[in-house]
Amino acid sequence: MKEISKLLDYRPDIKVVDATLRDGGLVNDFFFSDDFVKALYNANLRSGVDYMEFGYKADRELFDEEKFGKCKFCDDDYIRSIVGENNTDLKIAVMADVGRCDYKNDIHDRSESPIDLIRVATYLHTIPTAVDMIEDAKKKGYEVSCNIMAISNTQEGDVRAALDILGRSSVDVLYIVDSFGALYPEQIQRLVSVYEEFASKYNKKIGIHAHNNQQLAFANTIEAVGDGVDWLDATYSAMGRGAGNCAMELLLSFLKNPKYNVYPVIKFIENYMLPLKEQGIVWGYDLQYLMTGILNRHPRSAIAFTNEKRTDYTEFYKEIIALD
Amino acid sequence: MKEISKLLDYRPDIKVVDATLRDGGLVNDFFFSDDFVKALYNANLRSGVDYMEFGYKADRELFDEEKFGKCKFCDDDYIRSIVGENNTDLKIAVMADVGRCDYKNDIHDRSESPIDLIRVATYLHTIPTAVDMIEDAKKKGYEVSCNIMAISNTQEGDVRAALDILGRSSVDVLYIVDSFGALYPEQIQRLVSVYEEFASKYNKKIGIHAHNNQQLAFANTIEAVGDGVDWLDATYSAMGRGAGNCAMELLLSFLKNPKYNVYPVIKFIENYMLPLKEQGIVWGYDLQYLMTGILNRHPRSAIAFTNEKRTDYTEFYKEIIALD
Repeated sequence: MKEISKLLDYRPDIKVVDATLRDGGLVNDFFFSDDFVKALYNANLRSGVDYMEFGYKADRELFDEEKFGKCKFCDDDYIRSIVGENNTDLKIAVMADVGRCDYKNDIHDRSESPIDLIRVATYLHTIPTAVDMIEDAKKKGYEVSCNIMAISNTQEGDVRAALDILGRSSVDVLYIVDSFGALYPEQIQRLVSVYEEFASKYNKKIGIHAHNNQQLAFANTIEAVGDGVDWLDATYSAMGRGAGNCAMELLLSFLKNPKYNVYPVIKFIENYMLPLKEQGIVWGYDLQYLMTGILNRHPRSAIAFTNEKRTDYTEFYKEIIALD
Repeated sequence: MKEISKLLDYRPDIKVVDATLRDGGLVNDFFFSDDFVKALYNANLRSGVDYMEFGYKADRELFDEEKFGKCKFCDDDYIRSIVGENNTDLKIAVMADVGRCDYKNDIHDRSESPIDLIRVATYLHTIPTAVDMIEDAKKKGYEVSCNIMAISNTQEGDVRAALDILGRSSVDVLYIVDSFGALYPEQIQRLVSVYEEFASKYNKKIGIHAHNNQQLAFANTIEAVGDGVDWLDATYSAMGRGAGNCAMELLLSFLKNPKYNVYPVIKFIENYMLPLKEQGIVWGYDLQYLMTGILNRHPRSAIAFTNEKRTDYTEFYKEIIALD
C-alpha cells in the first residue's frame, strides 16, 4: 500500500509535459491556428506546466507540407514566431520519430533553436537508430527523452535489453508509452519496476505517456506517479489519437505541487477546446477504442471507424475479432 | 504489488451488479420504456451479469408517481411484467433509500416478490434506520446489502463504528459508495482494508459503487477487485447520475470469469443507449463533475450546470470555489 505521505505531499522532481499539439495533432493533421498555439503556450505558462511539445520534426521527404499544419514539422522559425526567445520556465519539446525524421539535417544546434527537449520515439526493434538520434541530439546540446512505443506488445526480456542499451546512452528520460491503451494499473506498476532497475543503475528519469482506450489514461498516470515516475504526459481535454490521452485538467487537479494551477487549463478548454469539438473534430473514449485496447492492437481500425462516423459497434467487434 | 496470478486468473466469488436502471434513472427520472427494460434484462442474462437493479422502492408519499417512471417505485407487478417468474441465474435487486422508502409496507415477502436482493442505501448518520431496514428485509427472506453513501466525506473512526454496527446486523454485503467521485485508487485500497477488517470478523462480503467525476470509476473498481472486493456495480455506457458510473463494457472486458461476455453489452449499447443519447439525455465525465469531485462535493450544482446547457466552466469554477 502506498504511504499516505505520498498522497498528501508532492515530489518536486515531477515534470508535466503538455503533448496537446503533438498527440492532438494526430487528430486534426496538425492544423492548429497560430492563435490557438499562442493561447496554449500562455495557458501552459500560467498553469505551471514544465514542457510544451509543439509537434513532430517530420521529414518533408515523407510528408507533404500541403497536407499538414505547421506542428507536423516544427521549424525553429515557426516555434519562435509563437514563443519569441521564450525567456520563461516553460521548456519547448518536439518529437523525433525513428524513420520519419531527417534528424541530422532538420534538428539544428540548440544554441540556434528555441527547442529544449528532443523526444525520440521508437519501437523496440529500432533502438539502435533511436540511440543514434539520442546521441545526435545530445551533441547538439538538447535534453533528450526516449519513448518506447507500444510497450504493451513487448516481451519483458526485450524491454530489459532495450533499457540496458538506452541506459548506456546519454538519454535523460526513459518513457513508458502505452500506445494501444491496453494496460491496467497493475501492469504499469510492474513495468515501472522494470524501468526503475535500469533508471537507478544508469541515473535516468522515467516518464509515462498513456492512452484512454479503457478510461485508464489518468489512472495509469497516477499509478505511475505513486510508483516513482516523474515525467508525466497530458493533453488538454485529453486530445490525442483515438481515445486520447491523460487529461491535463485531471492531472493538474491531482498533483499537489504548489506550482501547478488548473484554472488556466479550464479557461483554455472553454475558449479553445470546445470550439474545436464544435468544428467536428472527434477524439476520446468510445467502444471501438475499448475493443482495440482490450485486444492490444494499434487503434488504426478504430480511428477509421470513427472517421467513417460508424456506430455499428457490433459489426466492428465481429470484424476485429475475426482478425485475431 | 498485486500477484500476477490475480491478474490472469479470476475469483468465482465476483458478482456484477447492473445498476443502469437505478443510477441511470436519476438522469431521466426513470422514464425507461418497457422495451428498453426487457432488452436490458435479456442483455444481462446473456452477458452473465449476476444482479440487475431495477430501481428504487420510493415512497409514494414523497414522490409523485406522475413525475417519474416505473423504475422509481419498482412494484412487484411491474418487475414481473418484465421478468415473469425469472427462472434464470440473473437475480433482481432494488434500492431502498433510508428516509425515502416505506419499507414496512412496500417491501413484501420474498415468497411473493420477483425481487432477490434489497440494497439499503444510507448515509453514515442514519445507520440505525438502515439496520432496521436490513432486519426487516432479512425477515422477509431477502439477500441484503448496505450501501454507505458519500464515503469520501466520512471520518475513518465513524466508518469503523458503522461497520461494526452493520457487521452485527444480518446484512450480507457492505458497500463502499463513492457518491461524489472524489476518491483515488490509493484511497480505495485504504478503505477496502478498513472494510476488510469488519467483513472478515463478521463474515460479510464487500462491494463497490464508483462515480466517474475524475474518470476513475473503472480504475477504482478494478483497484477494489485487486484488493479483494467481490460485489461490483456497473452501468451500461456508464449511465448514472452526473459523471456516471463504472462502465459495464469496461468491467466485463476486464473480468476473466468465463461466465461473463461483453458482446451482448456492446449490442445493447448500440441499439438502446445510443438512441437515449440522441434523445438528448446527458451524463458522463465533464469539467463541472471533475470540479465537484475534486472538492468532494455532491454533484447537484454540476448537474444543474449540465441541465442548463452551460459551458462557461470558468464561471462555474469561480462559483463553487467561492462556496468552499
